[in-house]
This record gives sequence, structure tokens and C-alpha cells, in this order.
Amino acid sequence: VNFSLTILGSSSALPTSKRFPTAHLLNVNERFFLIDCGEGTQIQLRRYKAKFSRINHIFISHMHGDHLFGLFGLLSSFNLLGRKADLHIFGPSEMKTFIDFFITHFSHSSTYKIILHSTGHKKKQLIYENKNLEVYSFPLKHRIPTTGFLFVEKRAELNLNKLAIEKYKPGISALAGIKNGRDLELENGKIIPNKDLTLKKWRNRSYAFCSDTTFYPKIAEILKGVDILYHEATFSQADATLATETFHSTARQAAEIAKMAKVSKLLIGHYSNRYKDTDILLNEAKEVFENSFAVSEGEVYNVDRYRESD
Amino acid sequence: VNFSLTILGSSSALPTSKRFPTAHLLNVNERFFLIDCGEGTQIQLRRYKAKFSRINHIFISHMHGDHLFGLFGLLSSFNLLGRKADLHIFGPSEMKTFIDFFITHFSHSSTYKIILHSTGHKKKQLIYENKNLEVYSFPLKHRIPTTGFLFVEKRAELNLNKLAIEKYKPGISALAGIKNGRDLELENGKIIPNKDLTLKKWRNRSYAFCSDTTFYPKIAEILKGVDILYHEATFSQADATLATETFHSTARQAAEIAKMAKVSKLLIGHYSNRYKDTDILLNEAKEVFENSFAVSEGEVYNVDRYRESD
Repeated sequence: VNFSLTILGSSSALPTSKRFPTAHLLNVNERFFLIDCGEGTQIQLRRYKAKFSRINHIFISHMHGDHLFGLFGLLSSFNLLGRKADLHIFGPSEMKTFIDFFITHFSHSSTYKIILHSTGHKKKQLIYENKNLEVYSFPLKHRIPTTGFLFVEKRAELNLNKLAIEKYKPGISALAGIKNGRDLELENGKIIPNKDLTLKKWRNRSYAFCSDTTFYPKIAEILKGVDILYHEATFSQADATLATETFHSTARQAAEIAKMAKVSKLLIGHYSNRYKDTDILLNEAKEVFENSFAVSEGEVYNVDRYRESD
Repeated sequence: VNFSLTILGSSSALPTSKRFPTAHLLNVNERFFLIDCGEGTQIQLRRYKAKFSRINHIFISHMHGDHLFGLFGLLSSFNLLGRKADLHIFGPSEMKTFIDFFITHFSHSSTYKIILHSTGHKKKQLIYENKNLEVYSFPLKHRIPTTGFLFVEKRAELNLNKLAIEKYKPGISALAGIKNGRDLELENGKIIPNKDLTLKKWRNRSYAFCSDTTFYPKIAEILKGVDILYHEATFSQADATLATETFHSTARQAAEIAKMAKVSKLLIGHYSNRYKDTDILLNEAKEVFENSFAVSEGEVYNVDRYRESD
């Protein structure tokens, strides 16, 4: 069961000849979640052979062009491809104006329905769930209302320990109970504890997306222990004043958030085009948080599935 | 003195992993004219090292997304780069709504002024000129109002034949007359014809852009003798019915226009993504018009400057 992130765009507002504006694609069990949609996202999706038709959910962090100017083109292409499935777009309330403009002027006879979900930006909240996944939005601190997104696998049913099940032969309704964590009472009244009947739980994998934001330590609580934290790192510490003024973060600040939140892995991106080389940013992050990576277009970050230890 | 065309995007509405939607960049004497602006144009401009700041004129053929969805990103980047020069955009009257939407929602404090020029689509008309160049719009035939654009160098002053000038030593006002084509009357009343005093005229180079359009032979008159004709060739002749239905052209039809108009060189593009290989389209065009080329991103087509023959 896949849980992997593909980087489609890693630049900040001014793209370069090699870097596209922000867009990430999260694959959870072959369902694809698009997070931000900078200009050229559909071209990147093709380049990295993503299945357009498997994208049913798009999450937009805020209304700055470098995070959403790829939407018009992508929505048009869905139409040309004859898409039928509903498309759910999660974003600030202003997205309605943006999407309405598109529909009025560029999509007279759409083959599919767009369903908008307005994400508040005041507190952490569950904005989407399916049987495998929960998605939360949470407030960031930028020049305009901006949210991060947290993707967490849901506690699935427990897997049965086949040997034990063959031994105790529980009935159908007892089996369902076991999968949901219940113990088994045998006919002789003996109780077999659930842990002897099931395999250890799968750990719920998680990914958090934080772009764009000034240094905002309050979010560390929300990000606690995530497998992958993506945190913008527009500037280096030498440009910390500029970062503060523009409500962006430095690479060091991103790493400080990662450290506070005790995440497994930090990805940085949204680089200002003033840095010809991202090493300066990566090294700065690594000084604070060793397991840091500076993302580039086309990279894939997998989180392996593993069972919880005792 | 340059007159060269760079292909920024060659695909039709659905971009591929290698082809961007339509955008051409014409360099006339180091002034850059952007023609259509599909998604990703600013990324292509960077990739091919075009000077953003030298683009002061943008021409949009029609209001389909694959010809203008790159505008929002490009206009934003101009702003981030601190552009000061006025930007002139030529296009259908509906461009006003499009640009107003951008300004209202994404450009609160612009560093430069956008000046919109509405191009009619009923007849050929001069829409722009400077001392080196004239630009005309002319009607194409598509599902919505669409124009082509014709770029023609202007007749410059004549260059003097130095040997003759040294011999006859005309005064300053006589010299100005000679440069404008007048003969020289010597003090003894003898007339020296202009052609003995000047070099042959530079030929006025020209480029015509036709996208998107159904087969429309009427335009051949307007395109007569251009150095480079770009004409869309969305489909192959096998899909001619589809071309007619969608108001697009086949490669053979593009070549027929080139042949009727006796142009020097035909460029085809705007390929449907159903063709994995453009050879089928190119071969079809070449059967009718030998000097045909199927464009790809990053190609540069120069028109050399040369003097007219007698």
C-alpha cells in the first residue's frame, strides 16, 4: 500500500528554467491528492506519468498565483479528456470567485462537476476523510489567509493472526469484533486477548505540507511525529529579515519546526530564485535537523508501511 | 539586425510531457514580441534565455485557454521583477475581463501599467507600428472570434553608396532627400538618378501567425509572399472531418495555404496529442509545399536580411 509524495514544483513565486512553482502529488493507495497547483502543474503531471484520472481531490493553501495558476489549465484538460468523476477542490473561500470565473469564461460545457470546499484558516480541522485517510487543514501565518494540510492514514482494521484464528475458530460476528480490537470469549468462558489474535497494528503514516508561512512555532504541536514534513524555506538565515518582512521562513527556521515537532524527515522547498544552489539552504537546515532534504522536481519520497512496535 | 522567431510552445490544447501550449517569441532588432501565451510561457522564456524586460508587446489570438493561461503567471513575474515599462497587450475585447480579473485579485500593487488594445476580427488592420515594424491583425475562422497576426518590417531609409556620395558631394538637405528615394540635381543641371546614389533596398522581412483556424483560403491574399508562415496543423488529412468539426486545419490544408500565398517557408504546429510523432503531419505538408517544417520547443527560425534584387 503506497504512501508516496512526488514533487512537481519546488520554486517560489519566480520559477526558473528548471524549477516550477509549488505543486505536490500525494499517492495514498493509488488515490492521488494534488496539493497546490502552480503554473505548469499539468505539464509536470504528464512528465512524471501521473494518472490524471486518479486525481479527485485538490488542496489549495492560499490565493497567491504561484500556488494556483496551474488550475485553469488542469481543469480545462480534465474537460478535454472527458472526465466524468466529480472533482473536489479544498481551499480558501476566495476560491469560489476564481473557479466561477473559470467556469463562466472557459468551461461552458463541462463534462464533470467541480465541488468546492471552503477551508477555514482559524484552527486545525478535518476537511476530508475516506476509509484510508484523514486530511486536516491548519492555520499558517502568511500575508493572506493560508493553511497547511496534514494527511494521516486512518487506523485500519486489524489483520488477523491466521494461526490463532485457525486454533480458536471464532464465528463471523466474533471475527468482525476481533478486527476492531475486541477480545474473544471462548465457549468455556476463557478470554483470549485481542493481541494474541491479531498482528500488530500498522503505523498510520502521515505527511504535512506547510507553504507559505513565517516562522510559526505554534504549528509544531499539530505536526508532532509526522513521517514527512514539507516546510517552505524561501530564504537563508542571512536573509532572515527579508523572510520576516515577506512572511516566509528561512531554512533554519523550517528545521527548527521539524526539530520541535520531532518529525521523521524534513523536506524544504519554495526556494527564492536568488539562490543558484540549494546547498546553502540544505546545509543550514541540516545543522538543526539532520534528516533534511532539499526537494527538486520529479523526486519521489516514499514512506514505507510498517507495524507498530510494542 | 535580427528577425527571428523562437518557438516556446507547439502543442494544441492538451500539452504533453515535451510540448507546451502555443507561444511564439519574435525578435525584431532586439525588441521582443510575444504571440499567444499558453500555460508555462514564462518557464519557456527562462529556459531559452529570453530577456523578460525586452517584452513590451503581447499579442493574443483568441480567448481559448491554451493560448493565454500563461498570462497571469507572466504578468505576476513582471511585477515581482519590478517592471516599470508599460506593457501593451493586443487581443479580443474579452481580454479586458480577463485582465481586470487578474488586476483585481492578483495584482494589488503593480509596478507597471498594462495597456489593452482591442483587436477587431472583421478585417485586416494595422494594430501597432514602430520605426522598424508594422503589425496587422487579420480574421481567422475558428469557433470563437480569432485573429492571426502579420509582422512586417517597415521600409527603412536607403543606405548611401559611399563612392557616389564622395564623387557628387550633395549638401545636407539633398542627402536627406536621397535617403528617401529622391534623385540629385547637380549645379550644372545634370540629374543623377537615385539608384546610382544608393544601395539596393533592404527587403522587408515578414512573419505571419495563424492559429487557430479552419481551412480558410481567403487569408492567402494577406499572407502573400511572407518569409515565414506559421499555420496551425492540428490534424492529419485522415482526421479531416474532425478538423472541420472543430474549426482546425490539417497539415495538408496548412500547406495549401502556404502554396497559394507563395510564402518562403511554412512552419506547422499546434499538433493534437493523438500523433506520437509529427512526421505524419510534416510529410503530408511537404507533399504540397516542400519548404515545410514541424516546429518544436526551443527552435529558432531566422530570416536573414538581404537587399532586393532588380
